[in-house]
Amino acid sequence: MEEKQTTLVRFGIMGCARIARKISRAIKLAPNSTLHAIASRSLEKAEAFATQNELLDEQAKLIKTYGSYIELLDDQEVDAIYMPLPTSLHVEWAVLAASKKKHLLLEKPTALNLAQLDQILEACQVNGVQFMDGSMWYHHPRTAKMKQIISNSANFGHIRKISCTSSFRAGSDFLNSNIRVDPECDALGALGDLGWYCIGLILWAVNYKLPNFVTALPEVTLNSKGIILACTASFHWEEEPKTSATFYCSFLSHVSMDLTVCGSIESVHVNDLAIPYQEKAASFLLTSGAKCVNLQIGWNVEPEEVVVESQLPQEAHMVQEFARLIKGIKSCEKCPDKTWPEISRKTQMVLDAVRESVDRGYKPVYL
Amino acid sequence: MEEKQTTLVRFGIMGCARIARKISRAIKLAPNSTLHAIASRSLEKAEAFATQNELLDEQAKLIKTYGSYIELLDDQEVDAIYMPLPTSLHVEWAVLAASKKKHLLLEKPTALNLAQLDQILEACQVNGVQFMDGSMWYHHPRTAKMKQIISNSANFGHIRKISCTSSFRAGSDFLNSNIRVDPECDALGALGDLGWYCIGLILWAVNYKLPNFVTALPEVTLNSKGIILACTASFHWEEEPKTSATFYCSFLSHVSMDLTVCGSIESVHVNDLAIPYQEKAASFLLTSGAKCVNLQIGWNVEPEEVVVESQLPQEAHMVQEFARLIKGIKSCEKCPDKTWPEISRKTQMVLDAVRESVDRGYKPVYL
Repeated sequence: MEEKQTTLVRFGIMGCARIARKISRAIKLAPNSTLHAIASRSLEKAEAFATQNELLDEQAKLIKTYGSYIELLDDQEVDAIYMPLPTSLHVEWAVLAASKKKHLLLEKPTALNLAQLDQILEACQVNGVQFMDGSMWYHHPRTAKMKQIISNSANFGHIRKISCTSSFRAGSDFLNSNIRVDPECDALGALGDLGWYCIGLILWAVNYKLPNFVTALPEVTLNSKGIILACTASFHWEEEPKTSATFYCSFLSHVSMDLTVCGSIESVHVNDLAIPYQEKAASFLLTSGAKCVNLQIGWNVEPEEVVVESQLPQEAHMVQEFARLIKGIKSCEKCPDKTWPEISRKTQMVLDAVRESVDRGYKPVYL
Repeated sequence: MEEKQTTLVRFGIMGCARIARKISRAIKLAPNSTLHAIASRSLEKAEAFATQNELLDEQAKLIKTYGSYIELLDDQEVDAIYMPLPTSLHVEWAVLAASKKKHLLLEKPTALNLAQLDQILEACQVNGVQFMDGSMWYHHPRTAKMKQIISNSANFGHIRKISCTSSFRAGSDFLNSNIRVDPECDALGALGDLGWYCIGLILWAVNYKLPNFVTALPEVTLNSKGIILACTASFHWEEEPKTSATFYCSFLSHVSMDLTVCGSIESVHVNDLAIPYQEKAASFLLTSGAKCVNLQIGWNVEPEEVVVESQLPQEAHMVQEFARLIKGIKSCEKCPDKTWPEISRKTQMVLDAVRESVDRGYKPVYL
């Protein structure tokens, strides 16, 4: 048992957001991680959360609870912090967590803007701790399979067009009072909460090559406090052969998580990208070398459904990958990985550009 | 037999374009139509086309052939002309056909611009003949089923977003010499050939309510002669609750014919819109009332595949509908139907606006 304790990465969760329930389950499921403690601004809240969600440590005892965030950060047994705080609090607490040598799994959007994120990343670098944002879809085996297909340019051709959406229909409670539509908490609204996925997806598809410019389309819906409830933007890579991308994010539409990557020879479609329909397996449609048959009365091929099984939920894969990197650092074999912070940084940079385009009357913003 | 002859609408095909093979088959399949004659600029070409495609009249004899378009228009036995000529020739021949009292099934894009189309429509109106453009997908039973769903606003909610694509990957032969990339023949390029579908689809989804404005996105690909090979545009309805639409058309991407209509409560996806995979049946995905389950680890529902059978290919449904309207006019019971000309007119109007946005450096164009 002692051996197991020393090899598991010990997580502390900072804040009792709803998403913390999902991640506490993921920490339990990930084979290299354990949940050590949860902190809230009140001890009662932390205790209630731990009890209600049956949060047990690796010895099957109810986990530690703290009535303040700072106590959690001062717990020497905690290796890593999962931080689902409102975005406006990220920079303060993330920098502090890094200074306390805690590895940081930070919920997205990572910050209100790139300058804040850079403060966080710098603190992580200076303190030698791992940074990763909480985008789960990167870690699903389906994502790797799709990447393999779209990266094979001999088969897939040049990526011409990427389209994606991320939306759900928020109820009136959410639209009136959720932190994600409150300028004091999450000033980026649907762009931060849902657009983050789309921007990450588009960058992922093009191997994180930044677009030359981005532009928001003139259809942004704001609430009375100026928070984005819905928006559309397009990204443009000017080098020939050109690539372009369009995304739509909204708190006002029926649930959608569509991704289409259209190459010159093949294309990929998926409709449950950010959260797969089911945990055990997820699929996508691959259409390859399609053309119309003689007389143009049908297609020579129909899309093939490619099914990818997943031993763990994607969020457990995420925790596992994060913990794997931490174990490498703890054993003094490796420096913190730079890939994940760089992905977050580019995502935030492009998100800022979309926001700037909105603020500047939908003008193109060059990167 | 004589009874049958008098009740069948007799078609003449003007021009031996490849698409004429598909429509000659459709005329044969439509129960109220018969193919009477085909004309080309040379008699040899018309004869070869008739022989190679085994174009028989209702008495199973090889159909009449003409070595000039005017002879076809002067054939008193011809009720209706199907005209797949290059777009730049439409206005001249369509107006002439109408003046000869021929009903007109005109291949899309209907004209180089709205002014030309208006000349055609006026000629049809003055001469009391029916006009319809050759967009086949309107006539598929699947289209009617989808329309029923998205029009039911109590179930579907408000239509927030429409996305569609129409693309195929043209070979070098096409890109070098096809009439659709030749400014003398089809100066609208991919916007006319493929964007026509997308524009029609978007207008169809919103019951033909014109957008307040349209804007092309700054990613148009032109060939050396200035013809559009690929472009993206967005349409905006400003009235609250807002609706927006985006479409992509391209001669440079793998085949795609995607349509997504996202309402506030339901959404519809289809990936083979303009030409269904198979003739006998076509389907679409309907997702209704979807939300994430507890812990956000999956969906409460998965998309339902709605399959719609089709007794005839969609192009035969189109011919049948066109012939039905003609028979109503011939029996003096009805005036020409105004719905189809109006749909074409709005499509052309919006297409012109997209073209104008491209020409004006991607500025919004108000309608």
